[in-house]
Amino acid sequence: MFESAELGHKIDKETFRTEVPKLRSALLDTQFDFLQKGKFPVVILISGVDGAGKGETINVLYEWMDPRYLSTLAFSAPTDEERERPYMWRYWRALPPKSRIGIFAGSWYSNPIAERILGRLGKGELDQRMDQINRFEAMLVNEGALVLKFWFHLSKDGQRQRLKALEKDPRTSWRVTKESWARLKTYGKLQEAAGHVLRMTNTPWAPWIVVEGTDDHYRSLTVGRIILDALKSRLADTRDQNYPVAPPLVRKADALDVLTALDLTQALAKKTYEKDLAKWQGRLSELVRHPDFRKHSLILAFEGSDAAGKGGSIRRVTAAIDARQYQIIPVAAPTEEERAQPYLWRFWRHIPRVGRVAIFDRTWYGRVLVERVEGFCAEADWLRAYTEINDFEHELQKDGAIVVKFWLQISADEQLKRFKEREKIAFKRFKITEEDWRNRKKSRAYHAAVCDMVDRTSTTTAPWTLVEANDKNFARVKILRTICERLEEALGTGKSQLKEK
Amino acid sequence: MFESAELGHKIDKETFRTEVPKLRSALLDTQFDFLQKGKFPVVILISGVDGAGKGETINVLYEWMDPRYLSTLAFSAPTDEERERPYMWRYWRALPPKSRIGIFAGSWYSNPIAERILGRLGKGELDQRMDQINRFEAMLVNEGALVLKFWFHLSKDGQRQRLKALEKDPRTSWRVTKESWARLKTYGKLQEAAGHVLRMTNTPWAPWIVVEGTDDHYRSLTVGRIILDALKSRLADTRDQNYPVAPPLVRKADALDVLTALDLTQALAKKTYEKDLAKWQGRLSELVRHPDFRKHSLILAFEGSDAAGKGGSIRRVTAAIDARQYQIIPVAAPTEEERAQPYLWRFWRHIPRVGRVAIFDRTWYGRVLVERVEGFCAEADWLRAYTEINDFEHELQKDGAIVVKFWLQISADEQLKRFKEREKIAFKRFKITEEDWRNRKKSRAYHAAVCDMVDRTSTTTAPWTLVEANDKNFARVKILRTICERLEEALGTGKSQLKEK
Repeated sequence: MFESAELGHKIDKETFRTEVPKLRSALLDTQFDFLQKGKFPVVILISGVDGAGKGETINVLYEWMDPRYLSTLAFSAPTDEERERPYMWRYWRALPPKSRIGIFAGSWYSNPIAERILGRLGKGELDQRMDQINRFEAMLVNEGALVLKFWFHLSKDGQRQRLKALEKDPRTSWRVTKESWARLKTYGKLQEAAGHVLRMTNTPWAPWIVVEGTDDHYRSLTVGRIILDALKSRLADTRDQNYPVAPPLVRKADALDVLTALDLTQALAKKTYEKDLAKWQGRLSELVRHPDFRKHSLILAFEGSDAAGKGGSIRRVTAAIDARQYQIIPVAAPTEEERAQPYLWRFWRHIPRVGRVAIFDRTWYGRVLVERVEGFCAEADWLRAYTEINDFEHELQKDGAIVVKFWLQISADEQLKRFKEREKIAFKRFKITEEDWRNRKKSRAYHAAVCDMVDRTSTTTAPWTLVEANDKNFARVKILRTICERLEEALGTGKSQLKEK
Repeated sequence: MFESAELGHKIDKETFRTEVPKLRSALLDTQFDFLQKGKFPVVILISGVDGAGKGETINVLYEWMDPRYLSTLAFSAPTDEERERPYMWRYWRALPPKSRIGIFAGSWYSNPIAERILGRLGKGELDQRMDQINRFEAMLVNEGALVLKFWFHLSKDGQRQRLKALEKDPRTSWRVTKESWARLKTYGKLQEAAGHVLRMTNTPWAPWIVVEGTDDHYRSLTVGRIILDALKSRLADTRDQNYPVAPPLVRKADALDVLTALDLTQALAKKTYEKDLAKWQGRLSELVRHPDFRKHSLILAFEGSDAAGKGGSIRRVTAAIDARQYQIIPVAAPTEEERAQPYLWRFWRHIPRVGRVAIFDRTWYGRVLVERVEGFCAEADWLRAYTEINDFEHELQKDGAIVVKFWLQISADEQLKRFKEREKIAFKRFKITEEDWRNRKKSRAYHAAVCDMVDRTSTTTAPWTLVEANDKNFARVKILRTICERLEEALGTGKSQLKEK
């Protein structure tokens, strides 16, 4: 992995002097094109051995390019707002938008490598993390990002010499800390861990670029040229960035599916409803105030056909929670800033801190429902979304979020009845639009999309709950009960324990 | 202030039952109109005595309105990301955008009142804070926001009874903590502090609404009706929300002004330049790594005519700072999310944490320069901007930010020369656009705008530095030296002390 970065690469001063102006003007020109035409972001990871010139390289890039459209994201200890959210949240919030270059000084690799060296991460766990990273980077690339991962390498002896040289120079001596020298002692461990990590994450879509860090001229020129070439060829490449996807599933030969299998006649009498509603609301209210909930967050996802009763159900849930503890996120068309980011970014930005509840009224499943059916995105995009969404929910859950997803199903007749009722109601918000009637005509396509969605994204840890919603009472109680049960399961809190609290 | 909120207001159950459905449907209808047509945000502050029903009121609003377009902002202890920025930052980031209602449970009033009760804030300081709040709220209202400030009041005896009642009911007992009872003991102090604060901030544009909190029915109905009326009349009111402003300044009778007074012939020879540049860059590099800088942040504002050399100057500044420590913010047209907020919001979002540097390439002064000259905003808007900008910079500085502002001035001849040179250069980024030539024709209007800007916003703590920029060398050194001097002044660090460090 590191062999060709120990050959003693060197560029003499003279060559450097003649080469830099050419490279610089080419970089500026290309960056200008990118600014005008680049409908994608560039993500540059700067990582490697201490003293191999990470900081210097970043500064050189700022000197050679237009610094106004670069941003450097430095990650040290997470802030408390970051610590109280899933691990990847801090990286998502730092992603550069389209036409911008984000330089990551430290990245999603830093923590796994450090933990591995300290022996806190087993080999299996490390590989799991690398797998997640590969999937994350694949998503970035599929969303159009250009991902350039640099690793600056030094031989052990080279590192010792570099640290000494840096320490001697008064302009750079501050960079060399006790920790730098301490890290020299763990050189072998870093090489082992990094070698493994680089091999595992050396994917075709986001390969590592290992650069020898000994000679400043060589390193700077190499990095500059690689960025120039990568940017140029990506700008010239008009092909779809997606990797190949298998064609959509073939529907089954009979009429049975998860939706038709639902018994929509289920109903609750008013009296039972009122009793049950009070019971589950009381339980929910206790659960979100349970001390252990402060280690978790609750993410509720509501999907369903028009007029299926999402709004009413959400109100029955929020009635049990203090308004200061939850946030409702109505998902509509993405804003300009959201459109300049990968699809899932606009959901990541609303991921709650621990002890809080986020309720999504329509969700990230829009991509495999409305966007699929209406043709708002390419087939390849919604096909890969299933995997990306599963990964997303996995990321949330592994750090303590509890994800509960509901699909509210009503029959075509019931929907028609509700549409007609709404047309009569005075409340303006219940006005039925042309679009509602139009969507109804596409019900067959939506039906297929929902079945695929459930088949492909109902996982053990984040299963779909299909809600028979012809009877509103039945639906609301089922939803509240499901939330309570999932919370109890996560908190390890049965009814009896709660009472004792 | 509180007299009419101690009269024992009460609404009987029967009246409440008949009134609520009417109120609710009116609220929903109005909220729908607001969602469709409301080109302004609604800011609702919920404050008052403990036990007076703050939480309950918020929950009632969620029940009566469409909760998807409400958000509640609860402020307890600031997070570290908030603590390391100016006090108002956390409130700016929580402001609702246009067509949304933001309910503030706790607000910019909480901290001053609490500090006053604890005796940590003198009377004079309290009044200063209130003055700043009045100016902030005036800005919100001028920007179109509807600001509703509720104060829930209870007599001392009333508070005791409410707390007892809440404690008895198993559904609400958790709300009553030891602190609640402790606050009963400081009832008198709270009344005194709150009475003063309410009087000071009872402005025509954002008056307080004091509501008796004893009876749930009365309180809920009152708040609901006030919100309904306020929203309705604001929707019907098509008048400009700005308060009256004095007409623009009359220009002076002679040709002398701060710009014509500049000696643009000043220049630095190459050799002196190189020596001075190295010296000041070295100094700057030390200063931003000084331990005391961790209590400050540095905000650099660059303005100047086209081709005045802002970009080149910024590069000479950033060359002295590690890329991980600064962020350059190129100010272009606002995004959709930024347009949905008060003007200054898009600058507040980039305010750095302590120990960091933010460099604005064009700034919040756009409003009194390009927007004024090109007529992008109404006269009243740019006229009030001077005051708002001064307040903004004051907010930044009182919590440790160091604000340094540069206007780069070149002569008309020099500009023409640079334009022509740029047309010849190969770098695409230097292409001269039609707009540049067009702007040049408006130079007289820009000249007047710059002079007004300097006259009205050059304050003792955030003075404008006018930079004679015909000679790039001279300009760059002046800029670097000014930054160093301002930093040294703020850190109380002369050259000698730095050396000893």
